[in-house]
Amino acid sequence: MTAPKTAREPYRAALRTKALKIAESTVEEAGLKGLQARVIAANAGCSVGSLYNVFGDIDGLVVAVNERTLELLEEPLKRAFEANTTKPTAARLTALALAYMHFAFDNQNRWRAVFEHQPQSEVPAHYRERQARLLSLIEKTVSGEIATPEMRIRAARALFASVHGIIALALDNRISTFNAANVEGEIRFIVAAAARGLAEAQST
Amino acid sequence: MTAPKTAREPYRAALRTKALKIAESTVEEAGLKGLQARVIAANAGCSVGSLYNVFGDIDGLVVAVNERTLELLEEPLKRAFEANTTKPTAARLTALALAYMHFAFDNQNRWRAVFEHQPQSEVPAHYRERQARLLSLIEKTVSGEIATPEMRIRAARALFASVHGIIALALDNRISTFNAANVEGEIRFIVAAAARGLAEAQST
Repeated sequence: MTAPKTAREPYRAALRTKALKIAESTVEEAGLKGLQARVIAANAGCSVGSLYNVFGDIDGLVVAVNERTLELLEEPLKRAFEANTTKPTAARLTALALAYMHFAFDNQNRWRAVFEHQPQSEVPAHYRERQARLLSLIEKTVSGEIATPEMRIRAARALFASVHGIIALALDNRISTFNAANVEGEIRFIVAAAARGLAEAQST
Repeated sequence: MTAPKTAREPYRAALRTKALKIAESTVEEAGLKGLQARVIAANAGCSVGSLYNVFGDIDGLVVAVNERTLELLEEPLKRAFEANTTKPTAARLTALALAYMHFAFDNQNRWRAVFEHQPQSEVPAHYRERQARLLSLIEKTVSGEIATPEMRIRAARALFASVHGIIALALDNRISTFNAANVEGEIRFIVAAAARGLAEAQST
């Protein structure tokens, strides 16, 4: 006999919390490749069917883990944003970029999972909104130099992808052996040069 | 009875050429995940043992394919470099960046293979040299603005990783739905801003 929907809700919520916590630890320790529905279900003390009932499918579980990672990432980014509001744009952008770098270094597996995951279906709107909120920190930071919203979005995406690219290639030892000081130097170089470029574009 | 080494050399060279060509087409069509020693050997009409005898192991075959990709990439980059030697730094950097972007768009599977491959052992020196030669095109381009060789290397790596990051995130639809015009816009933005920043750093 199946319990009525309302009675099942607390169970679903508790299972969601428990399974998500286990999935987060798994990604933290073993990366995305370690995330197997069967193992997560066994550790959460439920069937794979119940797990999928809560998360939809394995994709839904990965998106939930990655959304938690974006939530964790938001904290240091917001701190960097708020601690530097009175500083020049270059210093503000650099603070955001280095906060992102430290998060990536300290949470490599979680961070990689966000970018490795190839979702089979459209990610939920609240995931996209969370992403957009992170990018908006950069948009706000360049708003003094860039007048139009669409150019601000372009600048924010370009700056984010640049800093991300430097970190990603460095962690994979793609163009040189990993060296944290070099990564920081490259990030400082591109962000400072771009910020000077923004200021100059403004003044001409 | 095994033929003496000298007699085997022409056979080895011919097998290398043939197998490499097959492996290149395979990566082009199916990406790195399509590259299986058994299938390449069958198509080249040799045993897996003979294939490994020529390339060392599957890693060696992938590196050989990726080195060919870097060789192909060098052509448009050199053309972009040589066609713009008299132009301002921003225009020269933009020409290199857009040539790289077009190569990535037109050769997605080959291009991804270069960055997806996780070599189990150190890549050969000639592979690293070829990579360094490509980066040196950027180093030469910023040499008017940046005096010291190590800062030029830093700038070249940062600029390359930035442009690469923009392309990679865009092709994976990471922060927005893929749109070639937006990718070009973001690349032009970051390269132009950075180039203006270089020029200004020089003049102050």
